[in-house]
Amino acid sequence: MKDHIYKIVHLTGTSEKSTEEAVNNAIKRASRTLHHLRWFEVTEVRGDIENGGVKHWQVTLKVGFTLEE
Amino acid sequence: MKDHIYKIVHLTGTSEKSTEEAVNNAIKRASRTLHHLRWFEVTEVRGDIENGGVKHWQVTLKVGFTLEE
Amino acid sequence: MKDHIYKIVHLTGTSEKSTEEAVNNAIKRASRTLHHLRWFEVTEVRGDIENGGVKHWQVTLKVGFTLEE
Amino acid sequence: MKDHIYKIVHLTGTSEKSTEEAVNNAIKRASRTLHHLRWFEVTEVRGDIENGGVKHWQVTLKVGFTLEE
Amino acid sequence: MKDHIYKIVHLTGTSEKSTEEAVNNAIKRASRTLHHLRWFEVTEVRGDIENGGVKHWQVTLKVGFTLEE
Amino acid sequence: MKDHIYKIVHLTGTSEKSTEEAVNNAIKRASRTLHHLRWFEVTEVRGDIENGGVKHWQVTLKVGFTLEE
Amino acid sequence: MKDHIYKIVHLTGTSEKSTEEAVNNAIKRASRTLHHLRWFEVTEVRGDIENGGVKHWQVTLKVGFTLEE
Amino acid sequence: MKDHIYKIVHLTGTSEKSTEEAVNNAIKRASRTLHHLRWFEVTEVRGDIENGGVKHWQVTLKVGFTLEE
Amino acid sequence: MKDHIYKIVHLTGTSEKSTEEAVNNAIKRASRTLHHLRWFEVTEVRGDIENGGVKHWQVTLKVGFTLEE
Amino acid sequence: MKDHIYKIVHLTGTSEKSTEEAVNNAIKRASRTLHHLRWFEVTEVRGDIENGGVKHWQVTLKVGFTLEE
Amino acid sequence: MKDHIYKIVHLTGTSEKSTEEAVNNAIKRASRTLHHLRWFEVTEVRGDIENGGVKHWQVTLKVGFTLEE
Amino acid sequence: MKDHIYKIVHLTGTSEKSTEEAVNNAIKRASRTLHHLRWFEVTEVRGDIENGGVKHWQVTLKVGFTLEE
Repeated sequence: MKDHIYKIVHLTGTSEKSTEEAVNNAIKRASRTLHHLRWFEVTEVRGDIENGGVKHWQVTLKVGFTLEE
Repeated sequence: MKDHIYKIVHLTGTSEKSTEEAVNNAIKRASRTLHHLRWFEVTEVRGDIENGGVKHWQVTLKVGFTLEE
Repeated sequence: MKDHIYKIVHLTGTSEKSTEEAVNNAIKRASRTLHHLRWFEVTEVRGDIENGGVKHWQVTLKVGFTLEE
Repeated sequence: MKDHIYKIVHLTGTSEKSTEEAVNNAIKRASRTLHHLRWFEVTEVRGDIENGGVKHWQVTLKVGFTLEE
Repeated sequence: MKDHIYKIVHLTGTSEKSTEEAVNNAIKRASRTLHHLRWFEVTEVRGDIENGGVKHWQVTLKVGFTLEE
Repeated sequence: MKDHIYKIVHLTGTSEKSTEEAVNNAIKRASRTLHHLRWFEVTEVRGDIENGGVKHWQVTLKVGFTLEE
Repeated sequence: MKDHIYKIVHLTGTSEKSTEEAVNNAIKRASRTLHHLRWFEVTEVRGDIENGGVKHWQVTLKVGFTLEE
Repeated sequence: MKDHIYKIVHLTGTSEKSTEEAVNNAIKRASRTLHHLRWFEVTEVRGDIENGGVKHWQVTLKVGFTLEE
Repeated sequence: MKDHIYKIVHLTGTSEKSTEEAVNNAIKRASRTLHHLRWFEVTEVRGDIENGGVKHWQVTLKVGFTLEE
Repeated sequence: MKDHIYKIVHLTGTSEKSTEEAVNNAIKRASRTLHHLRWFEVTEVRGDIENGGVKHWQVTLKVGFTLEE
Repeated sequence: MKDHIYKIVHLTGTSEKSTEEAVNNAIKRASRTLHHLRWFEVTEVRGDIENGGVKHWQVTLKVGFTLEE
Repeated sequence: MKDHIYKIVHLTGTSEKSTEEAVNNAIKRASRTLHHLRWFEVTEVRGDIENGGVKHWQVTLKVGFTLEE
């Protein structure tokens, strides 16, 4: 059995609703061009403010995927 | 056009329901005395525990706002 | 009045739904063997990916509890 | 019962005697203008040197207090 | 002689020219309302991009000043 | 001669008097159930505030001890 | 209106003159292959030394850009 | 299918030969009392020195294991 | 002479034998599609566990390479 | 007037009594061979344990001094 | 060919004009007593304030040089 | 019995073979001019790349030694 190699990309997903949706939006977009996505790790949670509330959640994440042989 | 100056304050919002509500509670309270709130960044997520579950979510955030000329 | 001593354990809770549920799952499990749970702090939010979306949220937390005299 | 909001300010207290006194000096000064001080966290311990010994202890701390409704 | 107490505020200065000017802009603005400014420390250097170059330098700094007795 | 293995536990000691006493309180309590305590490292100094002064020093430490063969 | 997704790349720009020019060199080069560059953040400032002075400034930065739908 | 809960313990393994052996020594010892060990992460590599060379490698690691239902 | 620009990618190499082999595996794989690889920096050492020992070493690294003019 | 240059050395002072005395011991020893000591910053507080209490406080500090022209 | 060994010293350079000049001042001073200076890394940018502007830039850096065989 | 004082120096050892040899090379070189070396801590593992593999391992470490009375 082989020793796998993974690559990690850094993405920021956004959502008006929740941090979870922001993460899912980023992963869904990444999966259109990258295959074999395996794991993610949240590295930053930010957002912009409008009318005294959160307008967009901006969640930055590292996403790891297997490089094909 | 001018070079803006921003000030950053540190707040902890709390909520019995979710981290998102804790953030919104902090921003809503800040907007009563501070104008031109622009962005936030979450720096800590903590909470206290009661009866084997989270009682309050305590989310600390930096909030940036434009200083008036 | 006494000076309390606290011990801190490190747990990872998981959930298919949200980071909040992952935290609550970890605390509920810990409370079966540890008494006097007092506070927690989130130290890491990760997860695994399946079919272009989050499969499990994996939230690591420190949980503090009072040591009995 | 309400969800409290806290504000955090950053202070440096100094003392010729000890780090503990430096912290207490900062808190005592803060309590003259801020009410409902609740907790602190030490973030830096520095000092200046004179004649081969510590002249002033300079302890930087975050101080949290409840914002009034 | 007294043990001084310092307060630290967090500011972001901006400039189209350089990081040094961004810092000076923040300090000049702060000195209009705060007296006895003593030192600063740069904590973040960011910026926004337009037409393949830096449009604004955004330098975040901590600024310390002496609290009056 | 053997290669030793150590385990590290995380404790918070408290004291109304000093950070040193808070550390000693935590170590004294730990030594009632753990043997072969060897070293510690302070990771956090916090406290709560009452009447414009520190009420309890809360010092978090890692404590290492030798696991028996 | 849509929730944007951003990707972040890590670059090191160099310059014999200044940190600002090193950043601009990196951004100018990136803009030849990447569109919609939005922001950057400096993460490291290093350099090599020759004849008792800085020969090259080496500034590492994160650069964020909007992923097209 | 269930949401698993993991616990993380902190160990220091030692070896006169290599960092890899130090890690394996710690895991082998842990597996005598803990079941379902799943992953580890190295957090510190230290050692003591004798006669101008490394005497013991001391590798600190976090080890995660599944808590039984 | 020109001011070079470098790009940095993040990879995780794995090996059943050692951290050094895991790093070399990642670099060998990267060199199949990226030219002018110049340096690397290890940012994380993890692994999974089977039968009371390390099964795979997982070493995450940043790899820098020169961007062609 | 000149632009001063400072050098920073790293020391660990020890004391059986307190962290403050450990710092002063390190500075007193440094001042026997280094002149113009100006400031220090504490970077680590550790210690060894004997008979259920702290035996030695070990405080690591950076000490800055002016380099002579 | 030999495996080189490098030593790293920590310096703070100052300048009334810019961070770049502060770095160059530190390196120029170091090169009077240390040979084979190779690289530097900026670890801190601070300064003191006078009359609403920066008086001295204080840039702390690590400087690496080859130890002679 | 005396309270010892330790000094800490920062070195980078290199090796074409392994991280362990790079550490030993640095310590062996240091022991030619420094006595009473006591412990080390690895702070960085880097390297340069040639022909799709690691050419030199570059391991940076802190080395502590006892200052003579």
